[in-house]
Amino acid sequence: MNKYSVIGKNVPNIDGFDKATGVAKYTTDITLPNMLWGKILRSPHPHAKILNIDTSLADNLPGVKAVVTGKDTIGKKMGIWRRFPEFCDEEILCRDKVRYIGDAVAAVAAVDEDIAEEAIGLIKVKYEILPAVFDPMEAIKEDAPCIHDGVELNINVTRHIEWGDVDEGFKKCDHIREDTFFCTSMAHVCMETHNTVASFGYDGKLTVWASTQSNYYTQVLLAEMLGLKEGDVRVIKPHVGGGWGGKLELDSTQFISSLISMKLHQPVKIILTREEEFIATRRRTPVHYITRLGAKKDGTIMAREVRAITDGGAYTAMGATTLYVTGFYSFFPYKYPSYRYDGYRAYTNMVPSSALRGFGAPQACFVTESQMDLMARDLGLDPIDFRRKNAMEPNSVIPDQAFIQSCGIPECLDQIEGFIKEKGKLPPNHGIGVAGYGFNAGGIFNWFDTPYAFAAAVVKISVDGKVDLFTGACDIGQGSNTTLSMICAEELGVHLEDVRLHTGDTATCPPDLGAWASRETLMNGNAVKAAAADAKRQLLEYAAGKLGINIVYDLDIRDHWAHITNRPERGISYFELVKEVIRSKGGQQITGNGEYTPHRKGMVSPAFSFGVQAVEVKVDPETGKVTLLSATTAHDGGTTINPLGAEGQLEGSVCMSGAYGLTEYYQSKDGKILNGNLRDYKPFRAADMPKVNILQVDTYEPEGPFGAKEAGEGLAVPTPGALVNAIDNAVGVRIKEMPITPEKILKALKEKKLQEKKTGKKR
Amino acid sequence: MNKYSVIGKNVPNIDGFDKATGVAKYTTDITLPNMLWGKILRSPHPHAKILNIDTSLADNLPGVKAVVTGKDTIGKKMGIWRRFPEFCDEEILCRDKVRYIGDAVAAVAAVDEDIAEEAIGLIKVKYEILPAVFDPMEAIKEDAPCIHDGVELNINVTRHIEWGDVDEGFKKCDHIREDTFFCTSMAHVCMETHNTVASFGYDGKLTVWASTQSNYYTQVLLAEMLGLKEGDVRVIKPHVGGGWGGKLELDSTQFISSLISMKLHQPVKIILTREEEFIATRRRTPVHYITRLGAKKDGTIMAREVRAITDGGAYTAMGATTLYVTGFYSFFPYKYPSYRYDGYRAYTNMVPSSALRGFGAPQACFVTESQMDLMARDLGLDPIDFRRKNAMEPNSVIPDQAFIQSCGIPECLDQIEGFIKEKGKLPPNHGIGVAGYGFNAGGIFNWFDTPYAFAAAVVKISVDGKVDLFTGACDIGQGSNTTLSMICAEELGVHLEDVRLHTGDTATCPPDLGAWASRETLMNGNAVKAAAADAKRQLLEYAAGKLGINIVYDLDIRDHWAHITNRPERGISYFELVKEVIRSKGGQQITGNGEYTPHRKGMVSPAFSFGVQAVEVKVDPETGKVTLLSATTAHDGGTTINPLGAEGQLEGSVCMSGAYGLTEYYQSKDGKILNGNLRDYKPFRAADMPKVNILQVDTYEPEGPFGAKEAGEGLAVPTPGALVNAIDNAVGVRIKEMPITPEKILKALKEKKLQEKKTGKKR
Repeated sequence: MNKYSVIGKNVPNIDGFDKATGVAKYTTDITLPNMLWGKILRSPHPHAKILNIDTSLADNLPGVKAVVTGKDTIGKKMGIWRRFPEFCDEEILCRDKVRYIGDAVAAVAAVDEDIAEEAIGLIKVKYEILPAVFDPMEAIKEDAPCIHDGVELNINVTRHIEWGDVDEGFKKCDHIREDTFFCTSMAHVCMETHNTVASFGYDGKLTVWASTQSNYYTQVLLAEMLGLKEGDVRVIKPHVGGGWGGKLELDSTQFISSLISMKLHQPVKIILTREEEFIATRRRTPVHYITRLGAKKDGTIMAREVRAITDGGAYTAMGATTLYVTGFYSFFPYKYPSYRYDGYRAYTNMVPSSALRGFGAPQACFVTESQMDLMARDLGLDPIDFRRKNAMEPNSVIPDQAFIQSCGIPECLDQIEGFIKEKGKLPPNHGIGVAGYGFNAGGIFNWFDTPYAFAAAVVKISVDGKVDLFTGACDIGQGSNTTLSMICAEELGVHLEDVRLHTGDTATCPPDLGAWASRETLMNGNAVKAAAADAKRQLLEYAAGKLGINIVYDLDIRDHWAHITNRPERGISYFELVKEVIRSKGGQQITGNGEYTPHRKGMVSPAFSFGVQAVEVKVDPETGKVTLLSATTAHDGGTTINPLGAEGQLEGSVCMSGAYGLTEYYQSKDGKILNGNLRDYKPFRAADMPKVNILQVDTYEPEGPFGAKEAGEGLAVPTPGALVNAIDNAVGVRIKEMPITPEKILKALKEKKLQEKKTGKKR
Repeated sequence: MNKYSVIGKNVPNIDGFDKATGVAKYTTDITLPNMLWGKILRSPHPHAKILNIDTSLADNLPGVKAVVTGKDTIGKKMGIWRRFPEFCDEEILCRDKVRYIGDAVAAVAAVDEDIAEEAIGLIKVKYEILPAVFDPMEAIKEDAPCIHDGVELNINVTRHIEWGDVDEGFKKCDHIREDTFFCTSMAHVCMETHNTVASFGYDGKLTVWASTQSNYYTQVLLAEMLGLKEGDVRVIKPHVGGGWGGKLELDSTQFISSLISMKLHQPVKIILTREEEFIATRRRTPVHYITRLGAKKDGTIMAREVRAITDGGAYTAMGATTLYVTGFYSFFPYKYPSYRYDGYRAYTNMVPSSALRGFGAPQACFVTESQMDLMARDLGLDPIDFRRKNAMEPNSVIPDQAFIQSCGIPECLDQIEGFIKEKGKLPPNHGIGVAGYGFNAGGIFNWFDTPYAFAAAVVKISVDGKVDLFTGACDIGQGSNTTLSMICAEELGVHLEDVRLHTGDTATCPPDLGAWASRETLMNGNAVKAAAADAKRQLLEYAAGKLGINIVYDLDIRDHWAHITNRPERGISYFELVKEVIRSKGGQQITGNGEYTPHRKGMVSPAFSFGVQAVEVKVDPETGKVTLLSATTAHDGGTTINPLGAEGQLEGSVCMSGAYGLTEYYQSKDGKILNGNLRDYKPFRAADMPKVNILQVDTYEPEGPFGAKEAGEGLAVPTPGALVNAIDNAVGVRIKEMPITPEKILKALKEKKLQEKKTGKKR
């Protein structure tokens, strides 16, 4: 008999068919009686004072029901780091000042989309244009324009991490490298743009259908920004077409549609255009790094120092997290006897930078893994041996930072080494590069200041044995609906098809922090497992009496059979048991409750995934074009709940992070984004996809449900770092600034040729 | 300080504004991606064998996605009296035989409504026409056509009630009357016709949005009829535009849209036309009565015998209940030392008769109250004195039938007597008639065979003190959403606006039998009160520790203040308390559960409303036209939770039951309904409404929440009976057959004149 009945099986997403056949309902599909269309007017200036807004022409356009400006708000500033008032700095609908091209200044609601669009064009805003700054290095200079009153040198957030004696550590090194790196920004490019339907009833209660990663955050932030009580705001999340960190905070569609609906008592729908999605939502945080790495001759790393300056854009957003996380993951997945990180986040007059799959870790990995290869070469060591020597280990403690229980990085390195050896000699201009990584399975620090458990679930069993599972988890395409249903079915001993999952509704699901930091499998999984266990306990208490078992034995349910665990033939049908227990409870459904909040598990996460990725590239020396041929990943995500789901995550990760390395980046001039459309922005298309391969690594994480950790975001971390290492191995040039464009490669090849000519030495 | 903070206040329906402004969402407003339109082909014959159905033309019509017939079903027969297989007799989509004009034989789903309609016209059904019978008196004859195989004399159900020695009772009487009466049928005339959207996903789970009075019944019956598990069927009830008993059973829109959706994995919407609503749903049960009433000279009633034959139409539907209830309410609201009832329900080839507001009680009241006036006149007694002498009393037992605790009928009679006296002498051809009544507050007998508690509720308190209340109660316009929210707020000590109610979703609300038999206030009210009390207990347990109170004192919460009941100044804010308790529970919301099932409370209901109504009419002796001038009702509904709601119920009742007496009835010929439209069917319009007045009667029902009983259906019972008594008092003619048409009055006036001429005596 397998250890598990449900877990570990390849299960297609339970909502996959509905999505593939077009039956699945997204927020844009929500249509309510009397619904109006909303449109938002956005600033064309990166930095300007709002002197006057004349809405009279728009007000008088037939079909227009409302025009709102910042004056219609209660003047609160939004910030998801609620614990720190100074990080709540965004008005959403600006009252006095705009800080980037795309900042919202007014909005209308009209009977149809065309009229709303027309009305937006009729609003006249008088601006006083202010000097603007777009580069964080410029922004922190004394004479830079001040973006937020009272914020000196435009420094929004600083973060520091340190242990050991770094200066002493460097003194003990045989070799020290100092490098600078730059990681670009990136757009989320969700297939579904931000959109909301808000309906404020005459009962004073607001219902919002939103494309969100966290019903709970949206609920709380809406309540705050609108002057309502949380309980009077209900947020419903239909199917979501991607989030990647960009749908975590309260957005302009949610806030403005609600604001107008409250004014009119009519439902309002706002859907961002693709252009607005690029210019007026969030983006990945660009980071400048200066980093020193010191090691002994034998390859023992002794010290590392990382300094980072991030381009924060106009508002804090999730930037305080990103700034910390990029410092945190700069020491992953290796052991540093001493380590120091100093991070600075600078405001600029750009789109706010925030969370995007990996949350600062892909940037950190690009830097670390570049330097690991460079250091190995400097020391004449095999890059995998060098990594193995310094790899993190199970059951270790990073001072004040992390408690690591399971850690499969050594096995991952072995597997990848085996794969590379098997591959043998490559054709000319081909190269393989590796990158190691680690990632969190959820976040610990309570920056949102929630009074609730981080994750909670309720299990209800009906008389026919069918199970309704309620969680606040947010499936935004990553498959948590399937994973959590599997965990519930496994724990309760029923089949997957017995479970009907209910998520994405603050009114019917227990509060939960939502989908970010790869938290659903571990955190929600723990809550779901606990809720199922609570329901099972009630069944087994009754069964114990009925079966009259010896107290030293215990009972369990598997495959609809409640039985004595060590005498499985002695038992009772789950279905009979459910019927009898409901009867014994006065006809009430069986309800189980579960919650999970990490305790005593460090600063960042209760558990970490680990992995090593090897990518193979072909570089065309004539054009500089890099082709990503394959990506092979040994991923330690703990127990894999749904291997098919993990595979999907890997494919998606390679698609996304391959493009992050090679093709996706913002082009902008004076704060204006020039490639804000899918054609010019160039995400990977099907033809760009390499061969993707996953190597199984078995670990068991004590903190995770059935030993599981994460497979969503970690997989998206290593690719850019592995890419530059592979390119170096292919054609002998080192790219330290993303994106890795053909132009940069050609330039580097030319410089290399010049250098070789000059020195007569070939690399 | 008032006894209650919330209860007893005039509260507009919490969803009233949304309904009045058009924002409220009904099933017809539900639109899903890929949704198809369904249409149903119905039999044009009252009784026929289906020889062949040729769907080929319809199948090939472009835009048609599916054509289904009875062969696509699993062949189950539907019946809501699930406990008795013989009462499950309706296929919904007929396979071999049709039994009334309107029986469904085929259905289509197409990309739009027009194509669906066109396709229906292309289906060719070959029938063998069978002899049909439309009158129950004919149907029970030996040579009548057999409507259901094996059902002898077409007798579908028989019911018997008896206590005391009826024959001996009659022997002791000074006067015995035997009368025959007939009560017509009636249509529900909901503003919202039956309609459904069904969506069967690739996950094997069905979601149905339906205009229903009971999510739970719809769920269970759909599962049975489709071969699914209950837990795989989710029924969501948006706002409902009226039910009145007609949306209690599984209907053709629910079954057929689900059947097609299961075939196609696409959502299907079916909306009945107004004509279909009249010919192919349900109707009030027509009843023929023969009844004997015996009394002593002093007005003491000694015995009563009632025999009833009901026109069942083609299927059982809720007819078994109606047949019992009309026998049960034939002894209300009076004391009978001996009583015998024999009821027979005959199948006919007519629309199935079933439940309609009052459920057989208005018919029984018409008969009883007619005979009470006639008997009083025979005995020379004042009709109110005669009623008072025989009125039911508090804390009495009807052998094997009912336990009556509160009973305000004597006070109601006093109030009405006072009103009439005050009114004084009336103009010529004006008359006042009275009728007494009683009605149940929910039903006891478990004909549906549910294993669940009859009512259940869950209360969840969030960190800001806001309350989410979940019940399976169905507000179908009667106002239970408001009533139940008030009960919750009162019990928990919060304000009404703190409560957000969630109903009408089998997935998120606990199972509940739904809205029928006026059960929501008492039964759901009890469950809601218990759930709120359970949540409150958790708060007070914590508060008790915190306040360190002497064990002999207890705590309560009122107006957001948790306090020592006899020292109200010593307490703690409800909001603080909630926050602390949630913290102490590991961050979980506070959840309270409550359920209610009546135990040891007789056959029909745990409590009964009582009342007396006086109507004033003006009769035009030239035309026979009766104008209903006013209706004054003394209603004992126990504690009135929401007086404004009760008033609304009274106005609606008078509108409905006034029309039942005077204008609404089916005209039919050979089984074909001739007036199946709103113009010809003639429900009361605004101009037909009399002055309506409610007289307060205070009672307290120990079984009800805060002493409440019912105010929904009882109020609709007395009007037709009061009307005929008023007409008699106005112009001296006695109408014993409904409807009370001008023709009948003219005929009776003519006969009366002839009689007076013949006898020389004036009445």
